[in-house]
Amino acid sequence: MSIRVTVWNEFRHEQKSEHIRRIYPEGIHGVIAGYLRQQGLAVRTATLDEPEHGLSDEVLATTDVLTWWGHQAHHEVQDAVVNKVHERVLAGMGLVVLHSAHFSKIFKKLMGTTCDLKWREAGEKSRIWVIEPAHPIAADLPQYFEIPHEEMYGERFDIPAPDTVVFASWFPGGEIFRSGCCFQRGNGKIFYFQPGHETYPVYHQPEVLKVIENAVRWAAPSKGPQPVFGNHQPLEKLATDCC
Amino acid sequence: MSIRVTVWNEFRHEQKSEHIRRIYPEGIHGVIAGYLRQQGLAVRTATLDEPEHGLSDEVLATTDVLTWWGHQAHHEVQDAVVNKVHERVLAGMGLVVLHSAHFSKIFKKLMGTTCDLKWREAGEKSRIWVIEPAHPIAADLPQYFEIPHEEMYGERFDIPAPDTVVFASWFPGGEIFRSGCCFQRGNGKIFYFQPGHETYPVYHQPEVLKVIENAVRWAAPSKGPQPVFGNHQPLEKLATDCC
Amino acid sequence: MSIRVTVWNEFRHEQKSEHIRRIYPEGIHGVIAGYLRQQGLAVRTATLDEPEHGLSDEVLATTDVLTWWGHQAHHEVQDAVVNKVHERVLAGMGLVVLHSAHFSKIFKKLMGTTCDLKWREAGEKSRIWVIEPAHPIAADLPQYFEIPHEEMYGERFDIPAPDTVVFASWFPGGEIFRSGCCFQRGNGKIFYFQPGHETYPVYHQPEVLKVIENAVRWAAPSKGPQPVFGNHQPLEKLATDCC
Amino acid sequence: MSIRVTVWNEFRHEQKSEHIRRIYPEGIHGVIAGYLRQQGLAVRTATLDEPEHGLSDEVLATTDVLTWWGHQAHHEVQDAVVNKVHERVLAGMGLVVLHSAHFSKIFKKLMGTTCDLKWREAGEKSRIWVIEPAHPIAADLPQYFEIPHEEMYGERFDIPAPDTVVFASWFPGGEIFRSGCCFQRGNGKIFYFQPGHETYPVYHQPEVLKVIENAVRWAAPSKGPQPVFGNHQPLEKLATDCC
Repeated sequence: MSIRVTVWNEFRHEQKSEHIRRIYPEGIHGVIAGYLRQQGLAVRTATLDEPEHGLSDEVLATTDVLTWWGHQAHHEVQDAVVNKVHERVLAGMGLVVLHSAHFSKIFKKLMGTTCDLKWREAGEKSRIWVIEPAHPIAADLPQYFEIPHEEMYGERFDIPAPDTVVFASWFPGGEIFRSGCCFQRGNGKIFYFQPGHETYPVYHQPEVLKVIENAVRWAAPSKGPQPVFGNHQPLEKLATDCC
Repeated sequence: MSIRVTVWNEFRHEQKSEHIRRIYPEGIHGVIAGYLRQQGLAVRTATLDEPEHGLSDEVLATTDVLTWWGHQAHHEVQDAVVNKVHERVLAGMGLVVLHSAHFSKIFKKLMGTTCDLKWREAGEKSRIWVIEPAHPIAADLPQYFEIPHEEMYGERFDIPAPDTVVFASWFPGGEIFRSGCCFQRGNGKIFYFQPGHETYPVYHQPEVLKVIENAVRWAAPSKGPQPVFGNHQPLEKLATDCC
Repeated sequence: MSIRVTVWNEFRHEQKSEHIRRIYPEGIHGVIAGYLRQQGLAVRTATLDEPEHGLSDEVLATTDVLTWWGHQAHHEVQDAVVNKVHERVLAGMGLVVLHSAHFSKIFKKLMGTTCDLKWREAGEKSRIWVIEPAHPIAADLPQYFEIPHEEMYGERFDIPAPDTVVFASWFPGGEIFRSGCCFQRGNGKIFYFQPGHETYPVYHQPEVLKVIENAVRWAAPSKGPQPVFGNHQPLEKLATDCC
Repeated sequence: MSIRVTVWNEFRHEQKSEHIRRIYPEGIHGVIAGYLRQQGLAVRTATLDEPEHGLSDEVLATTDVLTWWGHQAHHEVQDAVVNKVHERVLAGMGLVVLHSAHFSKIFKKLMGTTCDLKWREAGEKSRIWVIEPAHPIAADLPQYFEIPHEEMYGERFDIPAPDTVVFASWFPGGEIFRSGCCFQRGNGKIFYFQPGHETYPVYHQPEVLKVIENAVRWAAPSKGPQPVFGNHQPLEKLATDCC
């Protein structure tokens, strides 16, 4: 069965800005969803202004991997929805966090830190280096690729040390950034990926889309056991029973 | 200058239960604080029923490492205090989380997961193995030590994969547990240590106290740079300026 | 295309001991290879006493994942073959290291440590707990499973801290062990799995075989970029050229 | 008692090149040793052309932390000495590996990988960012510092994923590098630090010296238990004895 992906987008910039709408006439979610469909995945989209932000219990229950792009309206995402997404991730749903969603409520809640960073909008190039070529998210990529125009994100990136740093980026202004980071939380797999400023056509670039596809495949639930918690009877005779 | 430690305790069991009060006549915090003082540290105590739980801005600002024991009243800890402790940890204050404080608001907030586990109160032995002997928290310890009577905590322990698992425990009922776990979050260092059920004299045991001392020394702030976040001017001439 | 697996076995115990031959009439490799074939993998076997230990350049070049069982004859494995396997792992071939192969030349060379441990042959039970249920090697497994009779392996296991500890084991004699450990080295993925003492029918047990299958699928090369090393021309104009 | 440091240097460039001798009239080891002495450490030096490379059993047995700089004569270091250093690290001696010693026999043996990388000698600047400000090796440093002229080292750096990446570097030619990496191996702590090309006065720079001092203090043995390996009697009554 195909991996079931829900591509979530704040979808405000595209409606407010003529410039951005020209880059993403069907929204950032439209481009990402379109690409993932072509790869054979079962894709839906959801956006902030839909009821429950498009993330009803039914949608979440039937989502294997959720991708998340947000920027200017993080605070408008309802806590009730954030809590449900959090529960679903811990229960096994994958989460791919894109660009400015480093500041989304869901990512901060999962990380436990500020997730703050340096940034600059100067239309700079970014060069993304593969740091761990053995990781499946690096599949079918060259040793580095470039994004002609991107917002700079720079260290210190205030996240827990990732389980794996798959990519790290170079910026011409002198900064570096851990731009592709894996985390396991509960039964869920999380991948943060830095590229994707809304004013540049980053999600039209094949390498960027390939990374997102790889991340979705990696983050899909792997059918491990659901943990059992709480009071637990001994599996062995305790000494007092036995000797 | 000595490391400034604040030993925080819920301090309810000791007041309600004659049995527990006999083990800890001055509270769990009294025993831990007394030991740490003997090691030359600058120690204060704070408890739940003090104003602001004993954790005023002034106390937090002058605390290098906070140790935390709580159990039945996690929900009574005010969110405002939790948020201040969270900020202080990210700014560099060390945090040593003891036993049932795995379910404290502050630990769950820092971890981003449920922090749930298996448990059983059967007066079992626990054997604590050193997994990473090179870690400073394992200093001056034998390869394993035993606690004659302890509450069982068993895996799956729903935490992010620790930066280092220093100790792991064996229980006679058939369970194992990652019982000594290091995490870096922001500029702060966090150590979770499993032993310490209130009905047994665990914090009178020399090895347990030694681990807490080692953890305090390890978690003390190390004077690294405070990160700079936000909009950032380029450190190099950008291509458009220069070529 | 199917994953191409080479199942390597020392294959001495089965020839020398009537008891062991009865458990594995076609060798340990026979049982593992048979199971993996049923799962749709493309499987060959190789053993110590074949020329080049069955690991010619051609065999290695067409192997995606190598599984390795050895015990009493580690020293008979030629260094030239070990070096070739080492190169292949760094170039991307997966390696699944089984039981007493913790002391194999190839595992020690890849780890850089002694890989020593505690052991005891007493026919004890072992209980294998899933520590990281989100990891693909934990797929389709219960939260723990038991091996009725197994050699005890106990900590301290002298390995580098694994990238992920997927499983850890409980033994009735009071020991614990990190029994399922992932490592990335170069472009290769390595999984160490503890079960498999030759005198018990461990590799006939469905859960054990399932772990090996999961590990093979996880360790298969993921087509990341082959790193480029050595002298490197600048990708940007250096300041002296430009300003 | 002071930490006992042995500063090891290949000490060939300084004798062959007038240019390099002017930078390091008493050798690279002379500058590093002089600085560490001023910080109150107990420092000796040792060089390649001394008998046993200056690393007799007695010297190694009384060394807490060994720092290692080598470049053109890695192959002249005797395997017997490398094996002794390896054993000492696993037994708890700290090791600080500097610059081109990424290709030293001892570092490659401890890592198990090629330790290869990209390089370029173009007199470029390097900017070293603190990635983990909570780590003790980042103490007393700014959020980044610059080395005016340095050899470029670029990713992919073929090492196991470090336990902690404390520093990462930016180079103007477009590369990045994990330039400060921690590893625990056996009872020993290892720190790799990238700066230090022989043709520039890198080890005269205060921030670089501070990092080396911090690394030495971090890598000093912490008196954890020496592991016990081999056949092990049960610590609990086995079921067959008891029930």
